[in-house]
Amino acid sequence: MFDARDFLRTKRNRQSHEPAAVREFVAAYLSRNVHDYQVSAWLMAAFLNGLDAAETDALTQALLHSGRVFDWTALGRPAADKHSTGGVGDKISLMLAPLVAACGVLVPMVSGRGLGHTGGTLDKLEAIPGFQTTLSPDAMRGQLDRLGVVMVGQGPDLAPADGLFYALRDVTSTVEFEPFIVSSIVSKKIAEGAQALVYDVKCGSGAFMKTRESARSLATRLVSTSRSLGAKAAALITDMNWPLGGAVGNALEVREACATLHGKGPADTRALTLDLAAVMLRLAGAEPDDAAGRARAERVLDSGAAWAKFLEIVAAQGGDPKSLEKPERLHPAPIITMVPAPRDGVVAGCDCFALGELVVGIGGGRRAKEDDIDPRVGLVVLRQPGDRVKAGEPLAELHLSGPDGGAVERAVECFTVADVGTKRPEIVLERIG
Amino acid sequence: MFDARDFLRTKRNRQSHEPAAVREFVAAYLSRNVHDYQVSAWLMAAFLNGLDAAETDALTQALLHSGRVFDWTALGRPAADKHSTGGVGDKISLMLAPLVAACGVLVPMVSGRGLGHTGGTLDKLEAIPGFQTTLSPDAMRGQLDRLGVVMVGQGPDLAPADGLFYALRDVTSTVEFEPFIVSSIVSKKIAEGAQALVYDVKCGSGAFMKTRESARSLATRLVSTSRSLGAKAAALITDMNWPLGGAVGNALEVREACATLHGKGPADTRALTLDLAAVMLRLAGAEPDDAAGRARAERVLDSGAAWAKFLEIVAAQGGDPKSLEKPERLHPAPIITMVPAPRDGVVAGCDCFALGELVVGIGGGRRAKEDDIDPRVGLVVLRQPGDRVKAGEPLAELHLSGPDGGAVERAVECFTVADVGTKRPEIVLERIG
Repeated sequence: MFDARDFLRTKRNRQSHEPAAVREFVAAYLSRNVHDYQVSAWLMAAFLNGLDAAETDALTQALLHSGRVFDWTALGRPAADKHSTGGVGDKISLMLAPLVAACGVLVPMVSGRGLGHTGGTLDKLEAIPGFQTTLSPDAMRGQLDRLGVVMVGQGPDLAPADGLFYALRDVTSTVEFEPFIVSSIVSKKIAEGAQALVYDVKCGSGAFMKTRESARSLATRLVSTSRSLGAKAAALITDMNWPLGGAVGNALEVREACATLHGKGPADTRALTLDLAAVMLRLAGAEPDDAAGRARAERVLDSGAAWAKFLEIVAAQGGDPKSLEKPERLHPAPIITMVPAPRDGVVAGCDCFALGELVVGIGGGRRAKEDDIDPRVGLVVLRQPGDRVKAGEPLAELHLSGPDGGAVERAVECFTVADVGTKRPEIVLERIG
Repeated sequence: MFDARDFLRTKRNRQSHEPAAVREFVAAYLSRNVHDYQVSAWLMAAFLNGLDAAETDALTQALLHSGRVFDWTALGRPAADKHSTGGVGDKISLMLAPLVAACGVLVPMVSGRGLGHTGGTLDKLEAIPGFQTTLSPDAMRGQLDRLGVVMVGQGPDLAPADGLFYALRDVTSTVEFEPFIVSSIVSKKIAEGAQALVYDVKCGSGAFMKTRESARSLATRLVSTSRSLGAKAAALITDMNWPLGGAVGNALEVREACATLHGKGPADTRALTLDLAAVMLRLAGAEPDDAAGRARAERVLDSGAAWAKFLEIVAAQGGDPKSLEKPERLHPAPIITMVPAPRDGVVAGCDCFALGELVVGIGGGRRAKEDDIDPRVGLVVLRQPGDRVKAGEPLAELHLSGPDGGAVERAVECFTVADVGTKRPEIVLERIG
């Protein structure tokens, strides 16, 4: 019989759990021999006294095995996926999944919805009329076999213990703790059957990780925990002090994704798509190194094969490919207004978090899980750091569903125009693994 | 609307709560707007990050006002009580309540049961045939008015939030935390309507507080928190490296209490009874200082008035006063056997915790709340530290209900006989307040 009091006392006393004890704890919780109020006390004890790598790995393994674990090996091809820690304007998955699939690697991509100031891939996909993000396991398998790629939401049978733990973390203020974040992300990624995982760890004002140190720590732990569960893994730490690409908002991001799949689109969006694809191809064993992976990805992207694959996905999942023939007509907003530079000077920075919050505020994201999203609204950034502007010149386009209600003013305040400003760094700041 | 997440985040981040926030937290829990799993996470956060004096006072106040608060001021006399932190052989309440009442101070004494290695006053009282420890509030008031004293268990309407908190502490390994211990003790003592409180904080091998520092810290906090709620309060730190008096076990302790009330009984038992009575009389305003209080208590004890008051209590609460006419005949054990000294030498010490556990093991205490107690069994210590003994001479008498099952051997191991040994210190080690 598992003794939850002993287990709690161990962590309360700043001692390490045996990995087996962590697995027994989660199992006892699932069998209702450990109660919510004991798990929540443990969450706080772990938050305050820490979990080491072995404990984090064991927790991840326990969450993973609380539900279904997909296995696509019978399909005869390696499976790879990417996870982003969340940013502003991050539409990379929309290009990356079809691109890597078009390179011959399976992509069983499971994504989330936006919450807080960040967007979510599912919300972006649902800006495509008819697109269904819920597939049965059989339908997933069939589509993976035919197209080599699915883009779906997490089913309730994937790492269900993680959902239970997350609900308790949410109401006990124990969300922002690296070992919990790692176990939650990695258990779900491994459960979807990907053996090659690349993590896009965002760093900066628009990311959950504000500092390079915290991003590096999280990236390192994501990679090591994934490897402890038998996956190939690597991470890129990428800049999130400026929105990714130009578009922020669901339909606007789909438009930008279409442009990028056509070989156009913002330079950072294209670069990050290719860099992540390169790592996935390398980890999946499709290419010997990142350079070869990137060259292959670039060829496939520019050939139009990734775009063709994206249209196949849209069609297979109930979406209307015709709606993407003229992407600039997808969900037009009734009001488009300019965000003017407040003074002459150089574009010096952006409060990406405030920008994300602004888009949520005008209807482009959720305050609560049950909120509806307006796919039309958002913002398109027109300038880059280091650009010289004159007062009144547009910094961005704001797409609104109605009267601005102060949104333009708030948008102006997101940007810094100063006497001096430097260009953005390369989008990939650091590589791990 | 109380935000439990903010409240939890405050303590998680090692910040202090506003006193009002602590009160709102407990109120929100009682109105089911805060849940068990949030309280338990807070218990762990507080355990690990601490609660300061103001937070402890506020928690105590909140627990106190979760239920009925008795007020005996209409009876026209000050009300006083004592709380002991629990020891081995601690039958002081049996003499103290009638003694202080016989001095004209109201004693609305609410006691507990034994759990773990320590005994409980209610179990001792129930060794008196017929004695009832449950009285309705009206019956309490009536008896207090007539006799000036009741000796009862805690009703369910006294500080009910403390019971809920304790149940969560018990299952989350957050019991042994001074601010929780203080809030639990003081809220219940104040709720019973005593305005003058003396705390007997035990220190030593048979106590929960093993060191002088921990005992002093607890005593100081008990006094300051009681005062913050408007009570007069003081504490004695008393020695628990040797059983109090000679008897350990319920009927045996009643016998010793009767002897003490007759002006006999062990010196430490008599001394501590008088010392505690002196402080209660002083705090209740019945005497100007401890010396006057002790002189008065001694006179009243030796006059037989305390014994008479004890018999009145027994009769009023359904007990049979005749059963105490020859106390040595109360619940005789079928087997009485000697615990021999293992060698020639000097009695040097006692593992009081082991001795308490031994008495529980032979049926004199509880392993679980629902266990029955055998009032007959126990142990009477016949020697004192510093006494010279020869091998085989009796150190103690063991009172058993059946075959010894190794109890004699375990009893021998509780005592240390060595080449040298010193006398016991005075029973009162230190006075606070």
